[in-house]
Amino acid sequence: MTSATPYPAFEDFVPGEIVTFGAHEVTKEAIIAYASEFDPQPFHLDEEAGRASMLGGLAASGWHSCSLLMRMIFDGFMNGSTSLGSPGIDEVRWLKPVFPGDVLSVRREVLDARPSASKPDRGIVRFRLELLNQKGEVVMEQTNPILFGRRNPGTA
Amino acid sequence: MTSATPYPAFEDFVPGEIVTFGAHEVTKEAIIAYASEFDPQPFHLDEEAGRASMLGGLAASGWHSCSLLMRMIFDGFMNGSTSLGSPGIDEVRWLKPVFPGDVLSVRREVLDARPSASKPDRGIVRFRLELLNQKGEVVMEQTNPILFGRRNPGTA
Repeated sequence: MTSATPYPAFEDFVPGEIVTFGAHEVTKEAIIAYASEFDPQPFHLDEEAGRASMLGGLAASGWHSCSLLMRMIFDGFMNGSTSLGSPGIDEVRWLKPVFPGDVLSVRREVLDARPSASKPDRGIVRFRLELLNQKGEVVMEQTNPILFGRRNPGTA
Repeated sequence: MTSATPYPAFEDFVPGEIVTFGAHEVTKEAIIAYASEFDPQPFHLDEEAGRASMLGGLAASGWHSCSLLMRMIFDGFMNGSTSLGSPGIDEVRWLKPVFPGDVLSVRREVLDARPSASKPDRGIVRFRLELLNQKGEVVMEQTNPILFGRRNPGTA
């Protein structure tokens, strides 16, 4: 790898590989700031409304959890990578509430990695991403395809 | 409907119904603010990097579009509703870039609405949500199940 070669590239994602990374503490202030802008349902803004809800307490918007996971995968492996973007998300499951003080980490599994049939300079990697709290509980899971440039375009 | 009855409730979502609403202008400042916090890939932060990317210009993070859609459905019909939250998203497709100056609207279709088998006070409504720009292009689509309280618990 030279300094001119961004890392990681498509070739660096090996199907079956599992890595864990990150330790992001979620604050009450961040939960309320996100919710105030994007998802002001009462249980994302107010302790009492949270306790009265299915969530059992003031808890982060599911879209906030998605946004935090995005930042954690950016910091974890997408920063400086050959990422070209993503066509979408195959599935998002919000399994448990994210509460103030929770410390989140990411478990990333490479499901598969396919070179593009039409564009030899890139390939698509499908990840299963799990967001875990400090108890090891999976609070959210996603299946995310992401396009990455290839280090060796046009080879299989 | 009395003031003690939140609106809308589960019963108000009729399968097949299609409504459109909203007009939210996306600013460059908002794109960069969201990206700086949650998705600092260069093409979400910088004009030149955007032009050099698949996006063709500085464009919003897909997760920013999700967050904006959440706010638009809150303002459009979830505020004051009997929403209890959502178990997740079945599918997200980012179809076109969202650029500064785009004015977004929402097309909402009710796919189906099922009372809960185990909890007679609620039901789940599945929506197809499309985010459109001012040209009428669908920039993002999602399939979203959302739990709503029933106005008449325990009736079919």
